[in-house]
Amino acid sequence: MSDLKSKFLQVYPILKSELLQDPAFEYTDDSRLWIDRMLDYNVPRGKLDRGLSVVYCYKSLMEGKELSENEIFLTSVLGWCIEWLQAFALIIDDIMDNSHTRRGQPCWFRVPKVGMIAINDGLILRNQVGRILKTYFRDQPFYEELLDLFNEVEFQSLCGEMLDLICTHQGEKDLSKYSIPLYFRVAEYKGAYYSIYLPVACALLMAGENLDDHLEMKKILVEMAAYFQVQDDYLDCFGDPEVTGKVGTDIEDCKCSWLVVKALELANEEQKQLLNEHYGKEDPACVAKVKELYRALDLESVYEEYERKSYEKLINSVANHPSKAVKVVWGKYITSRGRVMKS
Amino acid sequence: MSDLKSKFLQVYPILKSELLQDPAFEYTDDSRLWIDRMLDYNVPRGKLDRGLSVVYCYKSLMEGKELSENEIFLTSVLGWCIEWLQAFALIIDDIMDNSHTRRGQPCWFRVPKVGMIAINDGLILRNQVGRILKTYFRDQPFYEELLDLFNEVEFQSLCGEMLDLICTHQGEKDLSKYSIPLYFRVAEYKGAYYSIYLPVACALLMAGENLDDHLEMKKILVEMAAYFQVQDDYLDCFGDPEVTGKVGTDIEDCKCSWLVVKALELANEEQKQLLNEHYGKEDPACVAKVKELYRALDLESVYEEYERKSYEKLINSVANHPSKAVKVVWGKYITSRGRVMKS
Repeated sequence: MSDLKSKFLQVYPILKSELLQDPAFEYTDDSRLWIDRMLDYNVPRGKLDRGLSVVYCYKSLMEGKELSENEIFLTSVLGWCIEWLQAFALIIDDIMDNSHTRRGQPCWFRVPKVGMIAINDGLILRNQVGRILKTYFRDQPFYEELLDLFNEVEFQSLCGEMLDLICTHQGEKDLSKYSIPLYFRVAEYKGAYYSIYLPVACALLMAGENLDDHLEMKKILVEMAAYFQVQDDYLDCFGDPEVTGKVGTDIEDCKCSWLVVKALELANEEQKQLLNEHYGKEDPACVAKVKELYRALDLESVYEEYERKSYEKLINSVANHPSKAVKVVWGKYITSRGRVMKS
Repeated sequence: MSDLKSKFLQVYPILKSELLQDPAFEYTDDSRLWIDRMLDYNVPRGKLDRGLSVVYCYKSLMEGKELSENEIFLTSVLGWCIEWLQAFALIIDDIMDNSHTRRGQPCWFRVPKVGMIAINDGLILRNQVGRILKTYFRDQPFYEELLDLFNEVEFQSLCGEMLDLICTHQGEKDLSKYSIPLYFRVAEYKGAYYSIYLPVACALLMAGENLDDHLEMKKILVEMAAYFQVQDDYLDCFGDPEVTGKVGTDIEDCKCSWLVVKALELANEEQKQLLNEHYGKEDPACVAKVKELYRALDLESVYEEYERKSYEKLINSVANHPSKAVKVVWGKYITSRGRVMKS
């Protein structure tokens, strides 16, 4: 494990123990124990990619200068704030989607004696981000910008979620609302700012930068997020479960996936009818019909074409961008996820 | 209707229309319509007491000076932020409590096509508070304190809710955790800061005050909230539904009510046993048993004694406190709710 990663991991217990002593609330023994367990169950169990990104990006922005202990600590704190935010989002998403497992364990709301208390727990996690930021960054010149950043990114991700929810679940299944522009708008707001932009923006603020000077970078990061979202959607249907580690259910769940949006764009009237009839149903026969149509439309080649073009555009944008932070983010993601091609 | 109230009401459509144009998100027609309807359904339908309090308190702090249009507008905006926060809290509470109606209409999550999207809507409401504060108060010297105030109060109310939830619902019914200190801790954190302190604190910030100079006032406001909470609990069991407008279900719901806590304190072993057996059950026969015990312990007189002492203590504290704001808040509440005595 790299030195930075091990130092990052050491920060979690410090933050937890401070939160359990938060002077804004008089804990009882029961409630302190509850929060302790809730944090351990939900916060540190992911891959921690987003959190670590803050540290790596900051390092790259410092152009190889040795980081002080304090810099490593503070960027790690910011990274953990993103992990806290992520834990909050996952708890809430799992309730809304009625999911069963998350990160290899039952979803928090499915743990005995938790149930709907999970919503309150999620909200406490979100509030703890504010508590942590206040403790460590109140006196920094960029404190207000930092609060604004977290607030804006959370707001955008909720709005993206809303777009997705109201087009997917609102009343009867209605594919007529699915379109490429809607698809990319959901990808941008629901995922891009919060997953990919936020860690970089935190690193920029730590480095004393003004975020308004980096709008071009923000644009590239949004494109990057879209590229990986399309990859996810492709793998959900065409990926090998042995490799991806999960069996996709986007078709059953009536998800506004890149594949169905593309299929609707390319389909003739008869094929559209078929999609309307079979998309979003649990019945394996229906799922098979949809997959058959995807093959008939040769969506794998359509994807390959899209992948190649976006990839080239992205590596060009990344190569031409002056900031090392973009290269670091791109490098981390493309290394950990790889390019996905037609099999 | 008073001039201030009518001006307060005019602010809601302004805030709504700005939020529907929020540049942080590219609305689709569908999503704009969704938020429009969600706001109208959830935000302006309450009594607006909390929101109006900000305006009235501010006026009292200004010692009768005529308020400028801008002052009325800005205090109204703060008042509406509290109503927004309240709407968020109610949506979430109703889901956690599996409630049916709210403010005379079905709970938002029970509206057709809403369901669990309500959680996301609630979170959007909470985020809109930040959006509104940013729009109108970013350049005020007290902006950071204002954000801290809303964050801290929300956090405290979530922690109070947690205390209540984990002692009420955690696993099997267990009355052994109910106690007077726990009861007042829940009342303080869950209700007092957010219902009673927040409007006053907003007015104080608007008036250029430092909140740390008003800790004595905060203490009185917390006592006031406790007084009204005990009153609520008493009415839930002993109030006349014709007058209160609702049929209490605290006994059925196993609530940590002042009455059950007091009963546990006064009961002998046999009576405790009876409470353990019958409290928190839907069966009307069980509810009747509990009420019978409350009468046997003469809780009505115990309440009356508590009410008289607290009332006297409160009017003394209010009378001796130099700030008019405390008197205004107390006057508004005691006028609208009245004292509740043994019938």
